[in-house]
Amino acid sequence: MRRTPLITLTTDIGWAYAAQVKAVLLRHDPDLRIVDVAHDIRPQGVREAAFVLRHAVPRFPAGTIHLAIVDPGVGGARAAIAVRCPDGTRFVGPDNGVLSLAAEALGGGRAVRLDPDRLSPKGVTSATFEGRDVFAPAAAALASGRALSGLGSPTAWKVLRWPTPKRRPDGVEGEVVYLDVFGNAITNIPVEALPEESGELRLRVGRGRARRIRRKRTYADLTPGGIGVVGSSFGLIELAVRDGSAANRLGIALGDRVALARARRTGKGGK
Amino acid sequence: MRRTPLITLTTDIGWAYAAQVKAVLLRHDPDLRIVDVAHDIRPQGVREAAFVLRHAVPRFPAGTIHLAIVDPGVGGARAAIAVRCPDGTRFVGPDNGVLSLAAEALGGGRAVRLDPDRLSPKGVTSATFEGRDVFAPAAAALASGRALSGLGSPTAWKVLRWPTPKRRPDGVEGEVVYLDVFGNAITNIPVEALPEESGELRLRVGRGRARRIRRKRTYADLTPGGIGVVGSSFGLIELAVRDGSAANRLGIALGDRVALARARRTGKGGK
Amino acid sequence: MRRTPLITLTTDIGWAYAAQVKAVLLRHDPDLRIVDVAHDIRPQGVREAAFVLRHAVPRFPAGTIHLAIVDPGVGGARAAIAVRCPDGTRFVGPDNGVLSLAAEALGGGRAVRLDPDRLSPKGVTSATFEGRDVFAPAAAALASGRALSGLGSPTAWKVLRWPTPKRRPDGVEGEVVYLDVFGNAITNIPVEALPEESGELRLRVGRGRARRIRRKRTYADLTPGGIGVVGSSFGLIELAVRDGSAANRLGIALGDRVALARARRTGKGGK
Repeated sequence: MRRTPLITLTTDIGWAYAAQVKAVLLRHDPDLRIVDVAHDIRPQGVREAAFVLRHAVPRFPAGTIHLAIVDPGVGGARAAIAVRCPDGTRFVGPDNGVLSLAAEALGGGRAVRLDPDRLSPKGVTSATFEGRDVFAPAAAALASGRALSGLGSPTAWKVLRWPTPKRRPDGVEGEVVYLDVFGNAITNIPVEALPEESGELRLRVGRGRARRIRRKRTYADLTPGGIGVVGSSFGLIELAVRDGSAANRLGIALGDRVALARARRTGKGGK
Repeated sequence: MRRTPLITLTTDIGWAYAAQVKAVLLRHDPDLRIVDVAHDIRPQGVREAAFVLRHAVPRFPAGTIHLAIVDPGVGGARAAIAVRCPDGTRFVGPDNGVLSLAAEALGGGRAVRLDPDRLSPKGVTSATFEGRDVFAPAAAALASGRALSGLGSPTAWKVLRWPTPKRRPDGVEGEVVYLDVFGNAITNIPVEALPEESGELRLRVGRGRARRIRRKRTYADLTPGGIGVVGSSFGLIELAVRDGSAANRLGIALGDRVALARARRTGKGGK
Repeated sequence: MRRTPLITLTTDIGWAYAAQVKAVLLRHDPDLRIVDVAHDIRPQGVREAAFVLRHAVPRFPAGTIHLAIVDPGVGGARAAIAVRCPDGTRFVGPDNGVLSLAAEALGGGRAVRLDPDRLSPKGVTSATFEGRDVFAPAAAALASGRALSGLGSPTAWKVLRWPTPKRRPDGVEGEVVYLDVFGNAITNIPVEALPEESGELRLRVGRGRARRIRRKRTYADLTPGGIGVVGSSFGLIELAVRDGSAANRLGIALGDRVALARARRTGKGGK
């Protein structure tokens, strides 16, 4: 017996709009199993959703259908696409890059540009909510076994440009790519760039002042309220405050530059 | 084989209280499938929940059981009711109008006033959480195939009064009935009242100043940061700011009057 | 046929991280059914989560697996544990007390200290997200029928110290143990301590001034905007404002002392 695939939802549209998407899916097939990944992506947070999907998708069963609705260009020139990866995982969403990090992590894939006329009765499609009127029917069609090629014509898809960290003579420079609910600031610097035995480091965030800091294994190794650098669960360097918010304490915003370097010895031990 | 029906939850009680409701449902039948519509309806937001249900319910499979817990009058004189619509869809909730817009959209239905003694062991019912102690057992009973008539005595049900927009000599006047997570302000004015080719319009919200505005097909047709009028996915006219919040920008509150009229030509082009 | 058990999630990690946990669970067994209890426990809110679990868990079917991720000590000295209660209910989480109130409510149980090497491939475990890398594989193993004893060695578990209210000559004194989404302040004082016919009471919260107040059956018995004492759905005395927030109105914080006493008659009827 073929198992009904899982469908995940990652959106910035909030629960009430997402309920309409779930309703459409379940009306197509009441046995579908839907997983709410997140509906609190910040409005128009294409990069945030791309990052969240990048790190969640590879952990889901192969063959899962991931539906992303972070779609500030809805109804405009951007295409609606479906992508199929080598392991059978599928994506449905806008072609604004939101799917691209996760799809690339699965080895890329081939895409079609969704043809609304093959998915919704003529004239039913809203110009402001294709997540409900185009993506959801497409995901339901894929779940029912319909081939990708039946939903539209082959197309190239947009790849999100993601910043790469830079080696510096005495350290590394990257940027903040994600702020989590605790206020931890996750950078694009891989954990390998800063071993746990790094000793004392000099941190500068954005245009803030430099401060001495240490690389620790986990939050519990920081002093209460202390600031430190840990290896995040994303495999990326993270700025954290024990039992507090690094974002609030250091005034960190998404995209802020993060420079980490070996601390210079000073006669007085520094500050 | 009879399929276990879906049960949806729409509440203002937050996730932690809603978990108690889910627990009660699943203890009645661990195979029930529960869909979280929303638990972040604003406190006592009967009208908000009614609007959300109005637009989600008709998209769910016929026969679904919709449980609404937005119940500021809990434990008081208001009845607890269950409603059955012609297509087999059922509702359970307080008789404060929260169910009425959706039930009417499905063609009305017949209702019973829930009798707690038929649903919970005597003395177990809390005076402050009938969603858990009365509605949930009622929904579980319906899901198990019990007839509506077995849960209480026939009753009339309260219909929420919903404002209707008014035609004006040179336009239309309505009010803001819903604010979404983006800050879009959805009015009670049907999209048909303002065709896309409306040209320039004069908008006045509440007691704010009049401003020139255009009806657009979708957000992407607005200039970046620009204010406009679009046809919302509810089939209602919506005030929107591209990649921003109309509610914040224009200081819009629920219930604010919205007047839209054809802009008068001015020699200077106006402001 | 053995039914796949339910797995519930109670976390302070937010939806995006929780999605990684769900992914791991579903990759172990795509048929698992997951119930989101809450992902908005306040950061490091061990006591809040313990209270939420205490009141939700006993309502779930026996045999359910409850996974709690409120884990400020992740990666540190605190153990990761699994607990099995006499009715077959199981818990997985950090040994910081978050599981203890619920486990005790089910009659206690025996615990094992989870051995990561039996759960995850060597070196895969993150020092900052054992909820994903240790607890989730443990919960999936239990769901698949693996015995508790297969996951680690027997251990004692930490019991959260919970405050008990104190009888006073003319009343009772307790503290605020939970603030709900409405701003109701739930105390640790059992409803039996204050019968509905208590007459007028004198309330003092924290260091605030004393005020006259009445014990009511439910919110609807309060005057609009009025402050009162009701019997909460937890079976505990609750401070409430009708259609408003007691927490905001009275400036209540978690842990605030609450003294309730019979009001003394005054010649002028008091204030």
